[in-house]
Amino acid sequence: MSIPFRERAFHRWLVGAFPPHRGELLPMGDDVAAVRVGRSILLLTTDALAEGTHFLPGSPAGLVGEAAVGASLSDLASKGGRPVAVLVDLLLPRASDPKWAQEVLLGAERSASRSGCHVVGGDTKSSPARAVVGTVVGEADLLPLPRRDSARPGDVLLHTGTVGRGGAAARALEGRRAPNRAVLAELLAIVPRLAEGRALAPFARAMIDTSDGLADGARRLAEASRVRVTVDVARLPWSPKLARGLGERERLSTALYGGDYELLASVPPARVARALAAVRKAGGSARPIGRVRRGRGAFLLETGGERPMPAAGWDPFAAPRRPVGKPGGRRRAILK
Amino acid sequence: MSIPFRERAFHRWLVGAFPPHRGELLPMGDDVAAVRVGRSILLLTTDALAEGTHFLPGSPAGLVGEAAVGASLSDLASKGGRPVAVLVDLLLPRASDPKWAQEVLLGAERSASRSGCHVVGGDTKSSPARAVVGTVVGEADLLPLPRRDSARPGDVLLHTGTVGRGGAAARALEGRRAPNRAVLAELLAIVPRLAEGRALAPFARAMIDTSDGLADGARRLAEASRVRVTVDVARLPWSPKLARGLGERERLSTALYGGDYELLASVPPARVARALAAVRKAGGSARPIGRVRRGRGAFLLETGGERPMPAAGWDPFAAPRRPVGKPGGRRRAILK
Repeated sequence: MSIPFRERAFHRWLVGAFPPHRGELLPMGDDVAAVRVGRSILLLTTDALAEGTHFLPGSPAGLVGEAAVGASLSDLASKGGRPVAVLVDLLLPRASDPKWAQEVLLGAERSASRSGCHVVGGDTKSSPARAVVGTVVGEADLLPLPRRDSARPGDVLLHTGTVGRGGAAARALEGRRAPNRAVLAELLAIVPRLAEGRALAPFARAMIDTSDGLADGARRLAEASRVRVTVDVARLPWSPKLARGLGERERLSTALYGGDYELLASVPPARVARALAAVRKAGGSARPIGRVRRGRGAFLLETGGERPMPAAGWDPFAAPRRPVGKPGGRRRAILK
Repeated sequence: MSIPFRERAFHRWLVGAFPPHRGELLPMGDDVAAVRVGRSILLLTTDALAEGTHFLPGSPAGLVGEAAVGASLSDLASKGGRPVAVLVDLLLPRASDPKWAQEVLLGAERSASRSGCHVVGGDTKSSPARAVVGTVVGEADLLPLPRRDSARPGDVLLHTGTVGRGGAAARALEGRRAPNRAVLAELLAIVPRLAEGRALAPFARAMIDTSDGLADGARRLAEASRVRVTVDVARLPWSPKLARGLGERERLSTALYGGDYELLASVPPARVARALAAVRKAGGSARPIGRVRRGRGAFLLETGGERPMPAAGWDPFAAPRRPVGKPGGRRRAILK
């Protein structure tokens, strides 16, 4: 029996089937698991990238390795974690050039060492299809951890960095039969906001990364926390990667649905100034882009007023057959 | 360019390309990574199982999940570790019955909870081919950790449990076009020797699990430690799963190359009695099956004298096209 696999329904099942046990500090539905070991709070997170879904046969192997680790480091950043060690699993066909595997691992190590840790182990196995799994073990310095389900009415929504980098990359790939290296590279270029995450964690009630786009992040935050999240379009920090030629609507749709791997934090108003100062001190940037209120769902505030955030983000199981890299696969269908 | 992928050559590259950094307590070539976190010694290990290589489309999904976690727990056991938490990554085709994924995860949780921990997180992604990655985080109580490269001349080789279970299962599968559930299940039935590993760790200089068979374990131990390892055939604890009808040579070849997931420990003679008593006290069984001496390579001691261990164990990248499940894929070719 072949049933289309739906990521969100599966997640709902997961949360119900795996209630947290003693010593587990985050629920199953979160992007990161947290357990106590001795006096330490251990953070565990893993991301799988598959050829055809998240990267293409022509994607530079080193960047695939960087992205597999970078995606997990970005999840770790959303809990304010410090990375400790990285594991990498490789699945690759029997007749594979060992250079591909080597470049993936060297890329993974580049990403790890930029963040102050190393690839310490992993596994390599034969499989009909290529895939790379990056698993990051990290540590948290303080509790409570910012969760996905802990945003509260009244909170201010802070966003690190810019919006639109991921969407711009996905757009550049669309319609190209043989995308060049620079375009493929841009899709996989993840800069995990670890310093910003550590700066925000003491002040943020909830935090999430925008690995599947800002719209998706806002929606997940709203859904998990049972609140209404409004993103103010006028306050979005546009990425310089967004082409200047784009119209306003085009620019917005590109920005909302690309994986930017920025952080979205829900911060009580009294702590906003300190949170922003901490991010600046850490060498990063963040700004308020919206509010959390009573209600449900994610909304956009535009000059004409508020409207519901148009549909969902990126569901890897519902994406079109032709992969476009990590983010943005459903953008056109969603915003048409 | 398509080059046949060779696991061992790749491992050699890995060991050279990833020298241990400060705080890493085991080299890259070992089955487990070890890092310090606070006052704890963290053990990290991961195993990927791919459809077509390690399990078949008809393999019961729950057992695939149990095996993915069991294989990593078995590695953890070889360091005397206590499991803390488990992550599971699933790669599965877009049009997949969600039940398969659910059963894998419930199987993974069965395996984890039998060993005193739980599945706390993971990732599920779309890929053309099914694969399951089980990652185990554990803790060690004491240093030094038994390594793969620390066996010394004079040591006695101890073996837990029995030999031949995995080989018998692989043999039962051979030549069957539609293997039944019981046969497929037996191949995936891993009982990680965690209690035995913890009992042996304070006494063992080196330790390894026989996930790829006793011959492979002995060979790896000898290679990494630069010693000569001799297995005494007369002392092998035969599994009752080995059919009685087998001739002596047939029985030996079946037993040497199946993945038994037992522990092989290299213990100084003065500590053997205490090591064996500790395993008994932990409710397990172990017995001396050989010796470590000056020299190189793995050998078999039979009534006719010593001879080199016939060839290698299971190299998943060199296995025949038709998968036979986890272990034993090259047995025939090796022993013909």
